[in-house]
Amino acid sequence: MLKEAIYHRPKDNYAYACTKDTLHIRIRTKKIDVTNVSLLHGDPYEWKDGKWIHSSIPMTVSGTDALYDYWFVSIKPEFRRLRYGFKLEDEDETIYLGDKGFGSAPWDDVAYYFCFPFLHPNDVFDAPDWVKDTVWYQIFPERFANGDQSNDPEGTLPWGGAAPTPENFFGGDLKGVIEKIPYLKRLGISGIYFTPIFKAYSNHKYDTIDYMEIDPQFGTKEDLVELVKTCHEHGIKVMLDAVFNHSGFYFPQFQDVLENGKNSKYKNWFHTHEFPLKTEDIPNYDTFGFVPQMPKLNTQNHEVREYLLEVGRYWVREFNIDGWRLDVANEVDHQFWRDFRTEVRSIKPELYILGEIWHDSMPWLHGDQFDAVMNYPFTTNLLNLFAKQSITAKEFVWNMTTVNHMYPSTVNAVQFNLIGSHDTPRVLTEAGEDKNRLKQIFNFLLTFIGTPCIYYGDEIGLTGEQDPGCRKCMPWDESEQDLDLFTHVQTLLRLRKEVPLLGNEGTFTFLNPDQHEHVIGYTKTDGRTTILMLMNTSSLDQEYKIPFNLKGKLIKNLWTEKEYAAEASSLIEQLPPYGFTILAFEE
Amino acid sequence: MLKEAIYHRPKDNYAYACTKDTLHIRIRTKKIDVTNVSLLHGDPYEWKDGKWIHSSIPMTVSGTDALYDYWFVSIKPEFRRLRYGFKLEDEDETIYLGDKGFGSAPWDDVAYYFCFPFLHPNDVFDAPDWVKDTVWYQIFPERFANGDQSNDPEGTLPWGGAAPTPENFFGGDLKGVIEKIPYLKRLGISGIYFTPIFKAYSNHKYDTIDYMEIDPQFGTKEDLVELVKTCHEHGIKVMLDAVFNHSGFYFPQFQDVLENGKNSKYKNWFHTHEFPLKTEDIPNYDTFGFVPQMPKLNTQNHEVREYLLEVGRYWVREFNIDGWRLDVANEVDHQFWRDFRTEVRSIKPELYILGEIWHDSMPWLHGDQFDAVMNYPFTTNLLNLFAKQSITAKEFVWNMTTVNHMYPSTVNAVQFNLIGSHDTPRVLTEAGEDKNRLKQIFNFLLTFIGTPCIYYGDEIGLTGEQDPGCRKCMPWDESEQDLDLFTHVQTLLRLRKEVPLLGNEGTFTFLNPDQHEHVIGYTKTDGRTTILMLMNTSSLDQEYKIPFNLKGKLIKNLWTEKEYAAEASSLIEQLPPYGFTILAFEE
Repeated sequence: MLKEAIYHRPKDNYAYACTKDTLHIRIRTKKIDVTNVSLLHGDPYEWKDGKWIHSSIPMTVSGTDALYDYWFVSIKPEFRRLRYGFKLEDEDETIYLGDKGFGSAPWDDVAYYFCFPFLHPNDVFDAPDWVKDTVWYQIFPERFANGDQSNDPEGTLPWGGAAPTPENFFGGDLKGVIEKIPYLKRLGISGIYFTPIFKAYSNHKYDTIDYMEIDPQFGTKEDLVELVKTCHEHGIKVMLDAVFNHSGFYFPQFQDVLENGKNSKYKNWFHTHEFPLKTEDIPNYDTFGFVPQMPKLNTQNHEVREYLLEVGRYWVREFNIDGWRLDVANEVDHQFWRDFRTEVRSIKPELYILGEIWHDSMPWLHGDQFDAVMNYPFTTNLLNLFAKQSITAKEFVWNMTTVNHMYPSTVNAVQFNLIGSHDTPRVLTEAGEDKNRLKQIFNFLLTFIGTPCIYYGDEIGLTGEQDPGCRKCMPWDESEQDLDLFTHVQTLLRLRKEVPLLGNEGTFTFLNPDQHEHVIGYTKTDGRTTILMLMNTSSLDQEYKIPFNLKGKLIKNLWTEKEYAAEASSLIEQLPPYGFTILAFEE
Repeated sequence: MLKEAIYHRPKDNYAYACTKDTLHIRIRTKKIDVTNVSLLHGDPYEWKDGKWIHSSIPMTVSGTDALYDYWFVSIKPEFRRLRYGFKLEDEDETIYLGDKGFGSAPWDDVAYYFCFPFLHPNDVFDAPDWVKDTVWYQIFPERFANGDQSNDPEGTLPWGGAAPTPENFFGGDLKGVIEKIPYLKRLGISGIYFTPIFKAYSNHKYDTIDYMEIDPQFGTKEDLVELVKTCHEHGIKVMLDAVFNHSGFYFPQFQDVLENGKNSKYKNWFHTHEFPLKTEDIPNYDTFGFVPQMPKLNTQNHEVREYLLEVGRYWVREFNIDGWRLDVANEVDHQFWRDFRTEVRSIKPELYILGEIWHDSMPWLHGDQFDAVMNYPFTTNLLNLFAKQSITAKEFVWNMTTVNHMYPSTVNAVQFNLIGSHDTPRVLTEAGEDKNRLKQIFNFLLTFIGTPCIYYGDEIGLTGEQDPGCRKCMPWDESEQDLDLFTHVQTLLRLRKEVPLLGNEGTFTFLNPDQHEHVIGYTKTDGRTTILMLMNTSSLDQEYKIPFNLKGKLIKNLWTEKEYAAEASSLIEQLPPYGFTILAFEE
């Protein structure tokens, strides 16, 4: 057994409270190395004759990636306390792992076991319940729909009449979104994530001038009230985007420092290194990246904290929004986010808090800061397979298993899974404009775990390169929309609503990718019903032998709605190029 | 290269801010497997021609345990932001590790690298500066000194006139401690950790009745004022012990629930499962362990939180104490400890917060909860070698290296290193009453890293089995004290004060334990001066060949105070049974 590969550390993704009375325990071993793993467990305080009393339960493999097997077990400790260790077996030896390392026999002394000291309700990760049932739709307001021409900025171009540039405007606004809610309902989404709508000069509004005002080009506070109300009436949640890492250049407090230097009463609102401020080359104040126009806010400063916390509270309290998406969230201090969560959650306990972080985000996902992050590791892997075709089906399964085991399952269920955004090339463009491959991307996005997001227009085949190309105007003339693609996404969303196992119910498992070079298979099961998804990742016809015996069972193809009884113990599915099958059967 | 053994994850003990501008990065590889590791690093936003710009610096091995080598590097990122990856080389191959796993070449895209997004001062672990220079002395007040017979409880026994039992009293009190401060000064300690002094029935006072009152058997609040004042005048810090996990049985709020059941206004102060309360067998309310007399406090309840936070604040605000030691800290919720830190630190920023946790405590040591925990993994390893003789010198070095790499070095410098307490058998008893082995334990304790603690009486050879045996009265008649042992400890404390490298200055490194079966060696160096400690762990004479060339250098033996010039390139130290040498030389 390869001891060096074995990893477990209490908390994080390896030991966590799943609910108020259930713990999840995971351990990692070298791939195909260990034949059995059991959890030895007991209450820390139950002793008899100088020995700690414990039981044993088997663990199961919840996934395998390029290097490791991940073992899993769920347990309900009667007194909410747990000491535990692992018994690991292969054909030659049995070893034990506890808090002080490996041993050749179980220990009598409880101190040698790992500890989950007490399961406190307020330490349980508590993303709102509604999130795992939500499908998001990301709107870049300047480009979605123009519902009020009276607020168009000077020089507004005709809708879709030019290629998007970093500077041009097309007049999109909140009223436009309100008008298009029937479209969104028809598509079937249940949450909107808006990129920033606060006062700012640019078309993207990430350069905030006033965090307490709606940008007049987008409308008024009354429009936002109406928008939120209309959305809520239609069962659609509303998430706004806040940029707390840095302000815009024309944020009055920054302008004051530019003007008054060390005499400005706002001089400590930013990370200034000397006065007067120098806005050329590398500025003498901290910025986002090296962009002088984006001065970094000093969130260590009490006044700044209070100001930004009030921003957080204000839009929740006054406008009843359902979520905050937090820009460049990783570059703001942890303590600020802890306070932020406490403050906004005290107003609306069901608020969703989403951080923009592109890398491994465990330090922000302990339950004290964010509910989720933008799941770019998911995006990268999905696009590498279906869009860029730079990895094999097997590598895809391995990588997605890694992604799936980076965080607790409680986090995975609310992770913000995206396939593109205002910050990336359009997914269809990434996929070489191959719509069959794009459909496979939607198929996976909308049947995996997590809370999926559709970037406006992806559902009707919008193309575009990296920003600004990916920010085209939404075409509303149906002749410019790919209606076949729309129907495909719409059908997936309908099925996801009708069949909870396609969402975040049940247990997700990849079929062994060694079974087929080109076909990916995965199941979701609640122990009664099982969904089997098969996806052909290649441009050729493929046959896939279903690796379990379904003989005599009634099988329903969820996509074609055909039902049939399996007549043979061995079933072969025929999959056309980039084809897929979604089957359901009872266990 | 064994990829499966390689581990790094940003934050925790693998990537952390050491100061406001310095990051520490570590990575773990299989033992003696990788020949070179370099850190590839750069600012996340520095690009040229579509490629991310980065530099490379070599990492060094900071320790080796039974299975792994640990590599380390310290780095100051100019703009306080860092993206980084690892280049790992052996004789056959070179591989790279980043945020998305292994690669065979460095990546052009920064997203494939690990991220330390921004170094915020308020996310830096900030234990008070004074702690790393402090040597603690743990006092169990009922047994240290009786300075005021008027407050002795009824039935108080003559001082040391009987074996300690769970119930008997000997009259120790705060005035007794004040009287003995000259003794403590003579010994050379600089901090006192008091087990609880709040009102309670037992002799150990862990069964709190009133968190806001001094137990009258120990004295008055005036006595505590005088005690803290006297200690501070003598450069001695004062740390009190609080039991927030559970109250005592006679805590009035609990008595009220016992009496009034579901009509008690304190019913939500505890974790009650049904009424009336049942105090027999397994109680129908949560307790510490299964002890009905120790009802667990419901720290999720707002009133309880406020009450306990005020306790935390009160003794700091009104009595100017320097530290809180928190009993059963692991079974209280993380959110409570975060609030606790914020509250008590806002009154006294230099307050030390020490949690009683016996197992791996990383989740409490991110800088938002505790400064340190009671370092029992250190204790276990040290006692296994010198007291119980159950492990070899080599295993000791490996285990201590594991302990040393569990946490950031910032934590290690303030870890509360103990060799026994009121909860364990006396160290001399554990060592089979062999004083030479006990001296080695003190030698290691007082020259390692961390903040060491001496349990009252260990310095004069007190013995005793597990509680209550380990709680004997401190003998004040010098004929009952081992003065040779006292002088030994006193000398170590004096040297530690005179030679900062014996404390938490410089870099600690074990010499390769393969060099000698029985002798442990380690160095501490600041680049100018190096300390070399050699300890014979066996009962036989040993020779140790110093594994570096000191020819021509002036060597000072810190213990004998002899100085000599090394005449040969190869020096052999003669070590008597359980003997030791502390040498200092200039680099």
